[in-house]
Amino acid sequence: MLVVMKAQATQEEIQKVCEHIEQLGFRAHPMPGATRTAIGITGNQGMVESGTLEELSGVAEVIAVSKPYKLVSRDVKEDDTVIGFPGTNATIGGRDLAMIAGPCSIESREQAFAVAEQVAAAGAQFFRGGAYKPRTSPYAFQGLGEQALKIMAEIRERFGLRIVTEAIDNEALELVDRYADVIQIGARNMQNYSLLRAAGKKRKPVLLKRGMSATLEEFLMAAEYVMSEGNYQVILCERGVRTFADHTRNTLDLSIVPAVQRLSHLPILVDPSHGTGKRNKVLPLARAAVAVGADGILVEVHHQPDKALSDGAQSIYPEQFAQLMDEASQIAAILRRNVPRGIEIKEKAGAISAVR
Amino acid sequence: MLVVMKAQATQEEIQKVCEHIEQLGFRAHPMPGATRTAIGITGNQGMVESGTLEELSGVAEVIAVSKPYKLVSRDVKEDDTVIGFPGTNATIGGRDLAMIAGPCSIESREQAFAVAEQVAAAGAQFFRGGAYKPRTSPYAFQGLGEQALKIMAEIRERFGLRIVTEAIDNEALELVDRYADVIQIGARNMQNYSLLRAAGKKRKPVLLKRGMSATLEEFLMAAEYVMSEGNYQVILCERGVRTFADHTRNTLDLSIVPAVQRLSHLPILVDPSHGTGKRNKVLPLARAAVAVGADGILVEVHHQPDKALSDGAQSIYPEQFAQLMDEASQIAAILRRNVPRGIEIKEKAGAISAVR
Amino acid sequence: MLVVMKAQATQEEIQKVCEHIEQLGFRAHPMPGATRTAIGITGNQGMVESGTLEELSGVAEVIAVSKPYKLVSRDVKEDDTVIGFPGTNATIGGRDLAMIAGPCSIESREQAFAVAEQVAAAGAQFFRGGAYKPRTSPYAFQGLGEQALKIMAEIRERFGLRIVTEAIDNEALELVDRYADVIQIGARNMQNYSLLRAAGKKRKPVLLKRGMSATLEEFLMAAEYVMSEGNYQVILCERGVRTFADHTRNTLDLSIVPAVQRLSHLPILVDPSHGTGKRNKVLPLARAAVAVGADGILVEVHHQPDKALSDGAQSIYPEQFAQLMDEASQIAAILRRNVPRGIEIKEKAGAISAVR
Amino acid sequence: MLVVMKAQATQEEIQKVCEHIEQLGFRAHPMPGATRTAIGITGNQGMVESGTLEELSGVAEVIAVSKPYKLVSRDVKEDDTVIGFPGTNATIGGRDLAMIAGPCSIESREQAFAVAEQVAAAGAQFFRGGAYKPRTSPYAFQGLGEQALKIMAEIRERFGLRIVTEAIDNEALELVDRYADVIQIGARNMQNYSLLRAAGKKRKPVLLKRGMSATLEEFLMAAEYVMSEGNYQVILCERGVRTFADHTRNTLDLSIVPAVQRLSHLPILVDPSHGTGKRNKVLPLARAAVAVGADGILVEVHHQPDKALSDGAQSIYPEQFAQLMDEASQIAAILRRNVPRGIEIKEKAGAISAVR
Repeated sequence: MLVVMKAQATQEEIQKVCEHIEQLGFRAHPMPGATRTAIGITGNQGMVESGTLEELSGVAEVIAVSKPYKLVSRDVKEDDTVIGFPGTNATIGGRDLAMIAGPCSIESREQAFAVAEQVAAAGAQFFRGGAYKPRTSPYAFQGLGEQALKIMAEIRERFGLRIVTEAIDNEALELVDRYADVIQIGARNMQNYSLLRAAGKKRKPVLLKRGMSATLEEFLMAAEYVMSEGNYQVILCERGVRTFADHTRNTLDLSIVPAVQRLSHLPILVDPSHGTGKRNKVLPLARAAVAVGADGILVEVHHQPDKALSDGAQSIYPEQFAQLMDEASQIAAILRRNVPRGIEIKEKAGAISAVR
Repeated sequence: MLVVMKAQATQEEIQKVCEHIEQLGFRAHPMPGATRTAIGITGNQGMVESGTLEELSGVAEVIAVSKPYKLVSRDVKEDDTVIGFPGTNATIGGRDLAMIAGPCSIESREQAFAVAEQVAAAGAQFFRGGAYKPRTSPYAFQGLGEQALKIMAEIRERFGLRIVTEAIDNEALELVDRYADVIQIGARNMQNYSLLRAAGKKRKPVLLKRGMSATLEEFLMAAEYVMSEGNYQVILCERGVRTFADHTRNTLDLSIVPAVQRLSHLPILVDPSHGTGKRNKVLPLARAAVAVGADGILVEVHHQPDKALSDGAQSIYPEQFAQLMDEASQIAAILRRNVPRGIEIKEKAGAISAVR
Repeated sequence: MLVVMKAQATQEEIQKVCEHIEQLGFRAHPMPGATRTAIGITGNQGMVESGTLEELSGVAEVIAVSKPYKLVSRDVKEDDTVIGFPGTNATIGGRDLAMIAGPCSIESREQAFAVAEQVAAAGAQFFRGGAYKPRTSPYAFQGLGEQALKIMAEIRERFGLRIVTEAIDNEALELVDRYADVIQIGARNMQNYSLLRAAGKKRKPVLLKRGMSATLEEFLMAAEYVMSEGNYQVILCERGVRTFADHTRNTLDLSIVPAVQRLSHLPILVDPSHGTGKRNKVLPLARAAVAVGADGILVEVHHQPDKALSDGAQSIYPEQFAQLMDEASQIAAILRRNVPRGIEIKEKAGAISAVR
Repeated sequence: MLVVMKAQATQEEIQKVCEHIEQLGFRAHPMPGATRTAIGITGNQGMVESGTLEELSGVAEVIAVSKPYKLVSRDVKEDDTVIGFPGTNATIGGRDLAMIAGPCSIESREQAFAVAEQVAAAGAQFFRGGAYKPRTSPYAFQGLGEQALKIMAEIRERFGLRIVTEAIDNEALELVDRYADVIQIGARNMQNYSLLRAAGKKRKPVLLKRGMSATLEEFLMAAEYVMSEGNYQVILCERGVRTFADHTRNTLDLSIVPAVQRLSHLPILVDPSHGTGKRNKVLPLARAAVAVGADGILVEVHHQPDKALSDGAQSIYPEQFAQLMDEASQIAAILRRNVPRGIEIKEKAGAISAVR
């Protein structure tokens, strides 16, 4: 923490601020400048509540310096986190990009299998599909729940695809943990700390989407919640933030990819479907996400988007996904990275182990 | 819904869009204009998924017209909702303004009683205090939980103040519903639909804070979630939104007060503490909130803010709260509204009824 | 400036950063903390370009401390600036609130006089009207130019009202300076530094509107541009900022009023017309602006808003303005401030001096 | 325009709104829906002032439908605009990407030539450098003015590079038009309509940067201002918008690239230097810009960024620019586009024609 004094602050005022800091149990480091004095504070664990300091006579401003996250930080772990999926060659976070594709919602066994077959054919290793849908309207389709989870477990059996799906509350979390391979926490729940802690007690990887107006620090702190409970397999995902811009549903903030990679060892993906909300912008932004260095792409694919029960407008066609796989491969190669084609099952996981 | 065609759209393209709309089971109303044709859609229940329409040949844009909320709307109920608190003269939503004050967190029985005594003396009818704190850091103080709820129930017994406190998950909700008078849903949980539904099944009033980047429509839809489960006692609360501006913690959006009042019958309060994050801005913005027509104020008060375990920087002193009561009274009078002083207990609620 | 080192930074890296700072001609103040070291920099005039520092080995972050503004700051001048209008009792910035009212555009002599008569009758001391209109579309009405300025000069003669009008470029500035009493710089030109400098060379007060996405610091720096040329009569004006919120045209940021008053001696007004863009929200927000402590109100009034050539939707009727004057008076009294009614001309300014 | 009536609106109210529309000289098209009636308006040229309509009894909302831009639109010109530079093989807007590189400010002949030599060697066809710098502080370096323009004219002679530089007012515009090949209008002046009109009267291409909080529509309307004066050679440039996000100086909105390309025939470039404000993010975002389909890149390069008088923190080193050229080439090839290497001068332009 740093306390900046006003230009006219007296020696006495500076002295009082220093004493106040010492009374709080910290060390004060006054630094006289050309026009004003700044006072450094050390010895604090995390944040000092800056309220009182700001109100002391002669104080112009209080500035926080230390970062509050620990486990997510490269300060603690320098090497990139690479998440593996036992029994397969799939990874998230290493040299290989993770391509995660599937419909917004699981609507029926037929629909889910139709999409899964095509994304598997195009080479995806991961299948995404909503079982529990957080919808703005209580009257909109809310997902098929456990039935959808069972369909996705079948898809894993049939195509080998690893399953990513969202848990919206503790009850859903138990089921998602049982059936899926990756537990997704949605943007609207990024600061649902109760859910984050519960996910932190699970041992499956957690894919955490950035909240609609989350700063980089808040995003990393949400990951810290999960990790603080002992689950270190956290995957971050940018999905667009809310701004004044109205030509897309959200504004996809690709600069957060290198920003995360500088501060944290966790992998970061990009979701160009929610990030734009418009089918005709998904491929260009997916290419951009690979080019900026993302560790993978999460994308909505539907074989009949006109008939989709949710997010049809932003779902791409299977043939567009195949094109995306090609383009992503070529761009990844320029960055000396790789888009693996198809999942390799080293040992067939039985129905039991699949649902542990 | 309204489909706007491109200027060069052919008659055939317009015809195809109309047919597509009819196939979806709706009625199409083509309206040729000077430069382009627009096609109105009627017969839809709620939103049509606009995805396909936007992709049809010749279509420039699809615009949503109907509002998706129902129960929150003045279309359904023209008169203002006034929420009463049985056995007392306190109300939220009518001519009387609701003044809700107390510390960010309940830290101890002593602290809570010290603050409660002073806010009661200043004339508040409602006491707020955090038992469960959603903190950005997992390492920060998270609240005393049920112990805090018990302290607040004692405060109700002792001072008559009605209790407002936040529930952060289903487990906390059960306890808050048992001990408190108003269930608060925080900004970070405004789109935690699982929690909203659960609160909708309770029969105590729900104070719903606006999410950090929620549009007016999303805010009303969150209230709709609560109401759709049968709990019609919803109180809205503006607490600042996230913008680029950095001179306050959030940007308090007072224009939402008349905007809500035009569309909805629900009461709307303002929280100038979170809305600004700075003690020296709380009183000016609280006055502004009363002047804009808010139905009440939710404000953080602490007798020793330097020692507060959370949000000390934005908590006002009890004597500032007394001044706020005076200023609010005077401004309310100009709007022909009233700030009641002190709660009147018509029938002493026993311990049992208090915890119903 | 403050350089924050990474947790793993070595003593050697810290040493190198200090040396680099000293080479740049500044003093380095290393402050070892519990987990990391911070290094204060003093001796710098204004901002150090932080680029290089950030790229040095072991550096986590560079934080700016000193504020770059001088003349606008209370550090330089503690007392509030009060701007007088010679020969009248009108002021901007003191105990008296400045009520500035009139149509968006001057459309004709008849329209301007009709509005002026009514706002004068309601007690306004200042008349605003656009002669040069910065319109989003090149095909929209752009204002009557000098003809409008002449009409406003006549209005000053006839009603005594002091004239506020916008200059959009250097050419318009010369004319506005000749005919008007206050030179307005619009939000879109807040960072048109060439125009700011030119206005700084004039000797009439400059009303500077906050840019659509200007931070407090940028807003004050724009005023600094005007003052740096020797014109110290700058009036700031909040008119709403751009956010994601869509229920109003802009989001009126009333918290900037106390924020400016804390840092600067300059007066600050609020424009609730552009700040909301909707007639039915102008009065509530105008009341809120007075309650928050603004030094005055700038508001659009039109006697026939349906026929207005610009901004009809946000113009209030003359009878609404009269109501606003009443409400503002009553609220101002609570803050021990005053809304003067009618302008007093101490010495009749001749036509020549009026257009100096 | 579309008027949406309230659910309870009576037939009489609907009738009155229709009559009002007809009185304004337009045609009203009532469309009764399941729950409410909407009324389409046709026959209007541009926007109807919606103010009165919104205030009529029974009206819920008024929605704008037509787009106000014309000349920038693909409705008017379907083919992409390709801007050529006579006597050279350089173009902006076609299959070839335009790579524009150089220092933020021209600081001296030595500095400018040092950078120019290296960007030319790396294959750039365009050189950018600031002669007039719009700086937030009046006390910061403001550029060398005409001296800088002369240095850049020499650079064109020496290296063949075409020159892009900013004009900040009418005076600078005359000089920039005389010495440079492309007239840049900066983000802060995007709505300086006086300057836009003046640039529209010139016959050199205009590079228009997106304003810090400009919507897509406002951006296109600013281009319309230039075109409405007869200069059809407008190049758009995304350079980051202002949001709450604080990990970069601005938030680079790459989705505007496909959005512009859908609506307009004008070329659109991306500036990753201002878009991020941090050297270590320039290359990743430049790659992303090429991948999203931008027509070129505008980037700040400095051979000694620590000593730069402005924007050193975001300037890349010449060797980084060479790497960017390589990566851009490879990504462009995937999109079947091309990054030309080096400018070909077909006929040596004499000193006279160079400064036309």
